[in-house]
This record gives sequence, C-alpha cells and structure tokens, in this order.
Amino acid sequence: MQLKEYLNEKRIIVDEALNGFLPETKGPAHELYDAIRYSLFAGGKRIRPILCIAAAEAVGGTSDDVMPVACAFEMIHTYSLIHDDLPAMDNDELRRGKPTNHMVYGEAIAILAGDGLLTEAFRIMACAELLARVGADRFIRVMEMVASAAGARGMVLGQVLDIRAEGKKIDTSHMEIIHAHKTGALLRASVTTGAILGGGTDEQIDQIDKYGKYIGLAFQISDDILDIEGSTEELGKQTGVDAERSKNTYPSNYGMNNAKKMLKEITASAVEVISGFDLKADILRQIAFYIMERKK
Amino acid sequence: MQLKEYLNEKRIIVDEALNGFLPETKGPAHELYDAIRYSLFAGGKRIRPILCIAAAEAVGGTSDDVMPVACAFEMIHTYSLIHDDLPAMDNDELRRGKPTNHMVYGEAIAILAGDGLLTEAFRIMACAELLARVGADRFIRVMEMVASAAGARGMVLGQVLDIRAEGKKIDTSHMEIIHAHKTGALLRASVTTGAILGGGTDEQIDQIDKYGKYIGLAFQISDDILDIEGSTEELGKQTGVDAERSKNTYPSNYGMNNAKKMLKEITASAVEVISGFDLKADILRQIAFYIMERKK
Repeated sequence: MQLKEYLNEKRIIVDEALNGFLPETKGPAHELYDAIRYSLFAGGKRIRPILCIAAAEAVGGTSDDVMPVACAFEMIHTYSLIHDDLPAMDNDELRRGKPTNHMVYGEAIAILAGDGLLTEAFRIMACAELLARVGADRFIRVMEMVASAAGARGMVLGQVLDIRAEGKKIDTSHMEIIHAHKTGALLRASVTTGAILGGGTDEQIDQIDKYGKYIGLAFQISDDILDIEGSTEELGKQTGVDAERSKNTYPSNYGMNNAKKMLKEITASAVEVISGFDLKADILRQIAFYIMERKK
Repeated sequence: MQLKEYLNEKRIIVDEALNGFLPETKGPAHELYDAIRYSLFAGGKRIRPILCIAAAEAVGGTSDDVMPVACAFEMIHTYSLIHDDLPAMDNDELRRGKPTNHMVYGEAIAILAGDGLLTEAFRIMACAELLARVGADRFIRVMEMVASAAGARGMVLGQVLDIRAEGKKIDTSHMEIIHAHKTGALLRASVTTGAILGGGTDEQIDQIDKYGKYIGLAFQISDDILDIEGSTEELGKQTGVDAERSKNTYPSNYGMNNAKKMLKEITASAVEVISGFDLKADILRQIAFYIMERKK
C-alpha cells in the first residue's frame, strides 16, 4: 500500500476512535470538552497512533490490538502541546494554523484541558478487553511504558531540561538527552508498545524499540530543519522561533549541512535495524523516509 | 485503636511509600524531582491514602492491597493543588504554611511538576503485583475509577465549573454538583477503590461508596466553615478568600448555623450507611467525626 493512502486510512479510524472516547458534550461539561476537542481535532497528523498501529501490524497484529493505547498517545501528545504553548512556557499564539488553546479559552481552562486530556489518556487504557486480549504481563508493561515515556522520567523531564537550557550553549550530548526525553520518548514508546500489544517476540520488540529511538531522533532533527527552512504557511506555526529563543538545535550546533547528513544516516539506521522483518514492516520503513523528507 | 495514633501510623507508612516511588534524585532530573517533592512532602495529612487503607481494612484487607493506589491518590491531590495555586487559577502564594510551588520554582516548572505528578500516579498503579493480587477485573475497575474521579468527568470538570461560577450567584444544586466533582470525586474514589482492592463484597463496596459520597460532602462543608472561622496560622493557608472571591459556599448560601447543622446530619448519614460493618470499620466511623470536628 502507498504510504499516503495508509496514513489517510489510519488517520480516519484514529479520529473516529478519539471522537468515541471524547465525544461532544452538552450540559455543564461542554466548555471543558469543547476546549479539549478544540486542540484534539485541530488537524493533527496522528503520527504517534499510526506508528503504534504500524508497529503492531509489523509483528502480525492489528489496529484492534492497540487502539486505546494508540489514542492515549495522541491525547498525551495534545496535552503536552496545550501546556507547552502557555504564556509561562513557550508563549505561542499559533498552532497548526489556529490560535492556541489558551488564546481561545484562557489560561485557566487551557491548563485544565491539558490536565483532563492527560488523565483521560489513562482512563481509556483502563480497558478490560485490552487486558484480556493481550494478557496481564503485556498490559502492565505497556501501561508502565506509556507513563514512563510521558512523565517525570520522559517527556515532562525533557521539557524541564529544555526550559533550563534556553539561552545557554550546551554540548551535543546534553542536547541529545533533552530531545530523547522531550520528543523521543513518546515516539519511541508508540512503536514499542505497538510491537508488544501486537504480539511481537522479544527480539522483534527490541528491534522495533531501536527503530523508535532512531525515528524519534530523526523527527527532532527534521523539526529543527523545518523551523529554519519551512514557512509559517506550510507548517501552520511560527518558524524561526528556535533561533529567536536561542534554542540549541541540530542545525545551530552542527551546521545545516551536517544536520541534513545526520538525518539521512539516522533514517538509514532506522530502516536497517528492522531489515529482518518481512513486507508487513514496509509501512514502518516508509514512515522513516517520510519523516526525513517531510515539509510540514 | 485511637484515631490519632492510627492516622500517625498510616501517615508514616504512606510517606515511606511515596518516598520510595519518588525518591530524591541527583543529576539533570533533580530540579523536577525537587519541585515535585517540595509539594508532595509539604506536610499533607495524607487523608486520601489513609481513607483508602481504612476502607480496605474495613472489608478485611490490608494496606498492602492498596498502597500504590493509595499513593496515587495523594499524588493526584498534590498535583491538583499545585495547578490550582497557579496565577492563572487561584493565584495563591501560601499553602500549608509555605510558599506555593510556583512561588519557589516559577510557573513553568510548577505546571510541569503537576503534570509529572499526575503521570507518575498512573505509572505507580501499573503494578504487576497489584494486578496479580486483586485480579484483572478489580484492577481495571480501580484504574478506571481513579482516572474518572480525577479527570474530565471528575475533579478537572469540577475545577472548570468552579472557575466559571466565581462571582455568580448559583443555586444550591449547582453548587453541590461543583463540589461533588471538585473535591468529592477523589475522596469518594479513595474509599471505594479501597473497598474493591480490599476484597469487599458488592454490597460492602456499595455501602462504602455511599459513605465516601457523604464524607466528601462533609469535607467540603467543613472546608467552607474553616475558611470563615479558622485562622491562617492554624490552617497554613489564607482564610477568608472564599468571600473575597465571591465563591459560593455552604455558609454563604445557607447561613453558618444551617451549614453546621448540615455537616452534622451528613456525618450521621455517613456513619449510618456503614452501620452493618463490624469493628474493623471503626476507623472509618472515627474519620467521619474527625472531618466534622477538624480545626485545620
């Protein structure tokens, strides 16, 4: 299957599932749900849930094996964007071409919409069918992995480290630690949990975990490059902000040409590490190239 | 056992468990962990974990049956205090006699410390021993109950409703809906999950759930009364703020004497609904009276 077609197809079933988990609500709860849904349905590419599904399929599983967990990743990703955009954090006014959550709903509701989304992510994973389907061991392993990737050992830690590094010149290994936590941990966990829930062998899970580590890094490098070479219109968010905030990025630390070369090498490593997989892993291979070549 | 002795004993084992789950950390993560631990070990009474343990004991279980979940309630409660105190929310400078989290660590880190705590609460519940001990059905039921009580159907919703009601005159049923979500849901879930994990029968779980509903309400009424009659020194936080913010409270809506009468009646109902329990439920009875009579 062509990647574009695959991404479209999966995006639609992920959107349907997300809509089922957090439906439109009338009555007193409508404002909170409106705020949550405003950011959750703002045109996200659903890359994390799709990675989770694709990893499950690569080891012979299906999207049914992973759907609550796949959606949980999107909810966690969305909450992190809402909180990152707050005035006390990155103070961003534009996200995916639309005003950020706090610009529309105010800071207090935006904080709470984020809190609500994060909590709902764990609520939808508390799913008896999922536990029965994959067994207690894999269920617990996945729950723990999602929480670790998102929390004080993962994404939240990365965000703290990133804030503290702003305006300072940091060395490359420090920058890599920041990215591995801030953006890498959740992307990596998306594929690794997909492989676990899809029924992969220990060896397959380990290889897909390494693939996830590489594409997490590739995603960050391409993000840094796009912030310089992309346009606000294409990306739907302000570009050039990394330089303005003196953020440490791959192009600023290595130079643009070296950053592009690294991106190419890391993409090759991601594809290499799953070379033992059959055709069912072709989508994972295509996604690696897609991340390298993306324009938005 | 005397209640005071019981509360002390359980507070110590809860503190030990919390310290084990979120230990002091050196290296790059220390600032985030410091911020988290600053609020988590700020002298909280651990009422939610203790309620969870006491409910488990009331149905013949032990603290070992509930400890990760009991601690999760304290982490969720603490994160909610950190976020509630933020300038965009209640803008409080003092909590338990100490500067609030954002006064010490800044707004960005306070938001992230809250996010981290909430996520860690779910990480520690992802516990294979707990699942094996109580079985898949009860495990999933408890996970779902904690997330529902904390999230967009529970505490977070209550906070949104409370913000929107500030400065408006609302009717009594609206006020009760706010409190049932904002403070009631988590207190109620503390005892109900305790009864589930402790191995209670369906009838016992139902009765303890009702007990939890009553004491959640009692807790809110006594909180409202203390905000008027308590002193900043005793409570470790500013008093008189409800009136200043034109919050709808039980004393403001019903008058102080009626509020006190209601508190007494609700406490009696809480004790009545567990009258079929044996001596093992005595602590729950004493806690109900403790909430009614508390001075801080």
